[in-house]
Amino acid sequence: MATTDAVLNAIDANLDASTERLFDLLRIKSVSTDPAFTSDCKRAADWLAGQLQSLGYKAEVRTTPGHPIVVGRAEAKRKDAPHVLFYGHYDVQPPDPLELWESDPFAPRLAEGKRGKEIVARGASDDKGQLMTFLEACRAFEANGGLPCHVTFLFEGEEETGSPSLPDFLATYKEELSAPDLALVCDTGMWNATTPAITVMLRGLVQEEATVHGPSHDLHSGMFGGPVINPIHILAKIIADLHDGDGRVAIPGFYDGVTELPEDVVEQWRNLDFDERAFLKEIGLTEPGGEGGRSVLEQIWARPACDVNGIFGGYTGRGTKTVLPAKASAKFSFRLVGTQDPKAIVEAFRAFVRERLPQDATVDFTSHGASGALQLPFGSEALNRARRALREEWDKDVVLIGCGGSIPIVGAFKRDLDMDTLMIGFALDDDRIHSPNEKYAFASFHKGARSWARVLAALAD
Amino acid sequence: MATTDAVLNAIDANLDASTERLFDLLRIKSVSTDPAFTSDCKRAADWLAGQLQSLGYKAEVRTTPGHPIVVGRAEAKRKDAPHVLFYGHYDVQPPDPLELWESDPFAPRLAEGKRGKEIVARGASDDKGQLMTFLEACRAFEANGGLPCHVTFLFEGEEETGSPSLPDFLATYKEELSAPDLALVCDTGMWNATTPAITVMLRGLVQEEATVHGPSHDLHSGMFGGPVINPIHILAKIIADLHDGDGRVAIPGFYDGVTELPEDVVEQWRNLDFDERAFLKEIGLTEPGGEGGRSVLEQIWARPACDVNGIFGGYTGRGTKTVLPAKASAKFSFRLVGTQDPKAIVEAFRAFVRERLPQDATVDFTSHGASGALQLPFGSEALNRARRALREEWDKDVVLIGCGGSIPIVGAFKRDLDMDTLMIGFALDDDRIHSPNEKYAFASFHKGARSWARVLAALAD
Repeated sequence: MATTDAVLNAIDANLDASTERLFDLLRIKSVSTDPAFTSDCKRAADWLAGQLQSLGYKAEVRTTPGHPIVVGRAEAKRKDAPHVLFYGHYDVQPPDPLELWESDPFAPRLAEGKRGKEIVARGASDDKGQLMTFLEACRAFEANGGLPCHVTFLFEGEEETGSPSLPDFLATYKEELSAPDLALVCDTGMWNATTPAITVMLRGLVQEEATVHGPSHDLHSGMFGGPVINPIHILAKIIADLHDGDGRVAIPGFYDGVTELPEDVVEQWRNLDFDERAFLKEIGLTEPGGEGGRSVLEQIWARPACDVNGIFGGYTGRGTKTVLPAKASAKFSFRLVGTQDPKAIVEAFRAFVRERLPQDATVDFTSHGASGALQLPFGSEALNRARRALREEWDKDVVLIGCGGSIPIVGAFKRDLDMDTLMIGFALDDDRIHSPNEKYAFASFHKGARSWARVLAALAD
Repeated sequence: MATTDAVLNAIDANLDASTERLFDLLRIKSVSTDPAFTSDCKRAADWLAGQLQSLGYKAEVRTTPGHPIVVGRAEAKRKDAPHVLFYGHYDVQPPDPLELWESDPFAPRLAEGKRGKEIVARGASDDKGQLMTFLEACRAFEANGGLPCHVTFLFEGEEETGSPSLPDFLATYKEELSAPDLALVCDTGMWNATTPAITVMLRGLVQEEATVHGPSHDLHSGMFGGPVINPIHILAKIIADLHDGDGRVAIPGFYDGVTELPEDVVEQWRNLDFDERAFLKEIGLTEPGGEGGRSVLEQIWARPACDVNGIFGGYTGRGTKTVLPAKASAKFSFRLVGTQDPKAIVEAFRAFVRERLPQDATVDFTSHGASGALQLPFGSEALNRARRALREEWDKDVVLIGCGGSIPIVGAFKRDLDMDTLMIGFALDDDRIHSPNEKYAFASFHKGARSWARVLAALAD
């Protein structure tokens, strides 16, 4: 315990240098979805490997068909210490719409937020800031007698695009990567700014892009409008049909594998101090939408959903163009729960679209990934130790929560490596991840590093 | 008649120089909808005024709140000659999608088409090539004893954006512009490559842009998807609702003012050698869509229609972004016939959209112009003279047709100047106007100029 105190003191004492290191990482434009930023992704991977090497750890930047994956290895001071796999991702979402940022998304800065200092930059919260809390905890251990656990580091650069290269990578390096006893992932949130949380449910994610084709080329809407099918209309009808009048997804078989929550979980969530109105007000709304008869928390944590994330067709510039377009496209995402089968959902969705095409219309599909939902056991030994450690740091009971977003790696760890994952993160609901002016509370960064120091110590206790 | 022959010979003899002049105009990137090309529009206006001045005519480039309007005046050799107003537009549609052009849209070239030589460039057919047929006819008259009619020239630069500045311009210069007896407009097509046509029906055009707003900012679709309204879904539902199951526009009151065609017109159209299958095959389709029980020709010429010309919302780049967007937009156009009231349609459309907004969603509208349909008398003296003149040039009877596109100026001439319009043009259905690789048959350009020489002579006969 004396060691842990020294480690926590070291984290406090070196906060300025820690922040500078995070800023260095945030300056790298590692947008994984856009090929224009491929070399930036490589730079971020190199930078992380450099960080690990600077701590005396082994580290390699390994190529994949997509962006590289960094694998590192650190030895604990005790040979018989537990072995954990720490996962984070260095890639970020595109920063657009750029005009809504108050400052350059890749020029990180400290700002004064309503609850104190904040780090503002694309990736500040998702996931560079979170990832660095763990590295800074490791750094503090190294200056104070060494790590309490063996650690394998795994940093990927394709989380924001559905981790297409990961399954093959895990298969290739299965022996090395399945050696740890437990995975730690820092890509989730707190319950609120003062209450730590461990995430035990994750929704899965299926992403499909559909392009509907009509006439062979763009036409003048005056000369052809009326008897000629319009791909925008066809696509709109398909999207309109996706939900029934009660907000449920209307694709046949979509709810196969969706089960009701156990009563004790329902009870725990009912007692959380969650204010639906305040949650909605934060995003400019007054009433919940979506599935009738389901609470907001239940819908986000434990119910499947379908959203169109983007749509485009015809003339999209300023002013007008009287065009009857040859095609129109939409990007669809499906959030899955329980045992919904991602492959079956892809097939059912595609059939649903095809059935709605009029004569002469055709459709192309592009798959952007498909992963199932994940539910972790509520009462493992590692979970109990982590809960105690977080309670010490935050002086509050840990809330066990669900998460609406997907973290495909957690499913892959379970499926491919037979490894459970502790999902501990320090993001807040208002971090604006994936949005302009993304931020990470400075307290999340600071106490996040302290939390990991306590969790690593507790796991080895 | 000797004079007309000399004029026709002069047109034939000077074809190379005529083509060079047209190419000069086609090189000017006068895209009216995009503010980036404002100075190019001004250059096109200056160039046209220069052409008129080079013929010894008075010509002025007059400013408007938008792009300038060129007004010119030429005296006939005979004081008591009829006075015509010739209208054309120098603005063009945006050339996008650029990647589908086989050559630079603003580098005009002669190509070998399936029916002979073609002029390929943005605006070759709509409307620069057409406009220049008239100017070249005038040029040939000037070298052969002068014009048979007094001519007032009116060249506008906002036709492709709904002519927003024209109504005020016509009001300001009403005395000057209402002096002519008849308007001539060259912005329509032939019946086919060998059969001339005069257009006697034009559909009106209402253009509206709607932006639906949901949450106050872009959200992560995993963290928020389910209970949060999605503006893309709302917009898609509105678009899906716009047409009923029989392809009719479902906005209440939309068909007010739409009447059935007189039986003799139906008969004339029925006897045209129009091949629906071939028409559809040309654009990659096999079956007519749209309103049930209406022929393709009737739908395009004499029935109203509604098309979405563009839609955009959320992430539209490559790959994916799991965003639940704050807003989504669509550009709508309505083609009107008979006495449909453009203002009433705008109001009915907006009410239709507003009624479909769920709690918390809002909508902004932008009007991009609204003009009614136009129907010209079938048997005026000027029409008969023009028919005879065109028959001489093409050796075929003239077909009296409708036109699906709008030419707002023709309505304005009738409404504001109490002036009838002869719509004579030489475009062909496969000119790909508003599309990549727009072309104008070289025969249209050449025989178009000859046709105008004959029509001007016939009107003064």
